[in-house]
Amino acid sequence: MSESQSPLNIGIAGLGTVGAGVVKMLQQNAALISARCGREIKIISVIAGNKNKDRDVDLSTYEWADSLTAMAQDTRLDVIVEMIGGSEGQTKEFVEEALKNNKHVVTANKALLAHHGYELAQLAEKHNVTIAFEAAIAGGIPIVKSIREGIAGNNITSVYGILNGTCNYILTEMREGERDFNDVLSEAQEQGYAEADPAFDIEGIDAAHKLALLGAMAFGVKPDFASLDIQGITRLTLKDIKIADELGYRIKLIGMARQEGVDYIQAMAPCLVPKSSAISGVEGVFNAVQTQGDFVDKTMMEGRGAGEGPTASSVLSDLVDLAKGNFVPVFGVPTNQLNTAQWQGPENLTCACYINCHVKDEVGVVSDITSCLKENNVSMDSLIQKGHEQDGSKNIVIVTHVASYKSIKQAVGSLANLSNVLDSPTLIRIENI
Amino acid sequence: MSESQSPLNIGIAGLGTVGAGVVKMLQQNAALISARCGREIKIISVIAGNKNKDRDVDLSTYEWADSLTAMAQDTRLDVIVEMIGGSEGQTKEFVEEALKNNKHVVTANKALLAHHGYELAQLAEKHNVTIAFEAAIAGGIPIVKSIREGIAGNNITSVYGILNGTCNYILTEMREGERDFNDVLSEAQEQGYAEADPAFDIEGIDAAHKLALLGAMAFGVKPDFASLDIQGITRLTLKDIKIADELGYRIKLIGMARQEGVDYIQAMAPCLVPKSSAISGVEGVFNAVQTQGDFVDKTMMEGRGAGEGPTASSVLSDLVDLAKGNFVPVFGVPTNQLNTAQWQGPENLTCACYINCHVKDEVGVVSDITSCLKENNVSMDSLIQKGHEQDGSKNIVIVTHVASYKSIKQAVGSLANLSNVLDSPTLIRIENI
Repeated sequence: MSESQSPLNIGIAGLGTVGAGVVKMLQQNAALISARCGREIKIISVIAGNKNKDRDVDLSTYEWADSLTAMAQDTRLDVIVEMIGGSEGQTKEFVEEALKNNKHVVTANKALLAHHGYELAQLAEKHNVTIAFEAAIAGGIPIVKSIREGIAGNNITSVYGILNGTCNYILTEMREGERDFNDVLSEAQEQGYAEADPAFDIEGIDAAHKLALLGAMAFGVKPDFASLDIQGITRLTLKDIKIADELGYRIKLIGMARQEGVDYIQAMAPCLVPKSSAISGVEGVFNAVQTQGDFVDKTMMEGRGAGEGPTASSVLSDLVDLAKGNFVPVFGVPTNQLNTAQWQGPENLTCACYINCHVKDEVGVVSDITSCLKENNVSMDSLIQKGHEQDGSKNIVIVTHVASYKSIKQAVGSLANLSNVLDSPTLIRIENI
Repeated sequence: MSESQSPLNIGIAGLGTVGAGVVKMLQQNAALISARCGREIKIISVIAGNKNKDRDVDLSTYEWADSLTAMAQDTRLDVIVEMIGGSEGQTKEFVEEALKNNKHVVTANKALLAHHGYELAQLAEKHNVTIAFEAAIAGGIPIVKSIREGIAGNNITSVYGILNGTCNYILTEMREGERDFNDVLSEAQEQGYAEADPAFDIEGIDAAHKLALLGAMAFGVKPDFASLDIQGITRLTLKDIKIADELGYRIKLIGMARQEGVDYIQAMAPCLVPKSSAISGVEGVFNAVQTQGDFVDKTMMEGRGAGEGPTASSVLSDLVDLAKGNFVPVFGVPTNQLNTAQWQGPENLTCACYINCHVKDEVGVVSDITSCLKENNVSMDSLIQKGHEQDGSKNIVIVTHVASYKSIKQAVGSLANLSNVLDSPTLIRIENI
């Protein structure tokens, strides 16, 4: 096969941590990559904002492209590796231009695909190329491949994931070190585990971008980031983490997308997960994704969720596939077969919940709370009183039976109006995954 | 693309649990499978030992092939699904005949590939087809795809796995139910979790077949089942499981293949794994595989290790790939690039170990044991005395520091010769994965 002898020619745009990691990996493992591909993967050109920055990697044998447009139009290139980031502007235009010039695009850009994935997939199809994005979800874990190919014969009924390493690191540190959220966040920023502006991570947006893509692939529907109900971890307290622990749970930021009859439900929110579940043991900067299929049942994958090596590993997975001529439609099926899901939010779930009411320690407070739950048709699995504070307040913690999340939310709304309930109660879903 | 419109025509040989499961899955999920493949996967013919057996699946629209040879030579077929089992005789001849007739082979047959994989891969290459065997390892977990494709850019340095659901079920039941090995095995046989002749499972042979294939793919070497050092779980006692638990470990049957400098080491044996490790939480009939790559670091996958649905799911993964025209060399690289590894056994490891000596409770026994270890240059991390039995015996349990496994084995050999050591001491490796 003469075709298999010619190299796969690539251009890399963006030479930050991951972009430079891809270059290092292609250099260090060149021989084994060529053996596995049956041909060389050859970097022809690179480009980034600053040509003269020291990146701890030898770029001397590659051309420096004149511009993003020039790279996108370079007829020598088979594949563009987009490591610039950002969902709009020059990045989006660059990807579009590359697709229009019949080049495959490999990217780690979840924001771009969560917002514009459907239109970009259409454009890719029109030009008989693909957008490969293993690196966009869960770092080094080959979860895109697993969903689109590994369990492709299944009707996939749910996807659950710990999809943001920064959040998971913060939650692990809070619990293990008995530390407050802000304390851990500051330290994570100093150590480089969290961005200077951490909102994107801790508000759950980054994880939600990934979830929108997982849901699309799993169910064969258009990604729909806009309809996603997103809660981050900023309101979680050490107190809740400790009480959850006593009750047999860990608190994790869980992305969930599942089929419920003819509906699809997706949500990004902190959840209590039983300590006996595999996903509860995923700690620190690790990510995990658990899928459920009608024949395969549960499968879970765990690995590093970010960083130079793991993300470069996923980019290489895509490049190796492309070098072998193996590729699949962006979201698993051609865009004209992607359904438009009427995504529901978590209010359509039935689930058990954890409710923590900070109350004045007065006669009748438990009675008031339980009456309020009864009025909303929410029954309790357990109720415990915790932590008599110096100010005379305490916490009443309730684990509900499985009920409509909407009813439970209404009940919690009513609880907030009780005179002896001091703050808005904390409400966290329990996911028995 | 007109080619993509014609069905992928398949024949299924063997209609036991998994074969029938593949038929059910192709029927039940026909629409979504066609959407994901861009074409239909069409069963043309089937064959099995007994045509008239009720298999709880409608076979009326398929031809019953005249013979295995007829199916292998049927020019209408693109793929043969081999679900017969057995590593020799008619199964091997059938697979060979199918490959010679330019048909891809999809199989769950680890024994066949562990023994004859290299020669069969050569034959497949010669005829420009492949042997796809996702279903042969770890049931529904897409681990073959993950290793050959998902982390294909990495120098893979180790693979660890819980690869036999029967063994893992027995070990879990022993610990959770505080039951003896034979008791649990009998029950497992009654419930169908273990075969009437369980030797293949409990002696570690089935798991070792899978390990030989994992090692070959991970390191790009010829599978070498013959050189594998195999220990099963038949000599594990409830006492050891309980003591390990107190020490912070679970005992699991662990398949291990790793690079150690220029050497490759592989072994199948019960090991102590820390309770803090992800793999220690894999219980019951579940399987798991943990890989380590130079860029991606650790990745772990967990799922059901056997059964109709999970194994059929893996067969479908292979069929979907083939329907899309995507396939890779059997062991990840062409056979002429597979190296011949000089596999080493576990004696070349350095590791910590668990040693349990059943001794007469006499003056000087601890001194004798510790002297014996010292003479063999094995130092101790801890020593505990357990269980003063009615017969005046007790157990001296030692956790060693990391040392040459060979030295530790020699030390244990010497311990067995001490006059107050009653039985041959139990020696189990500790794997801090």
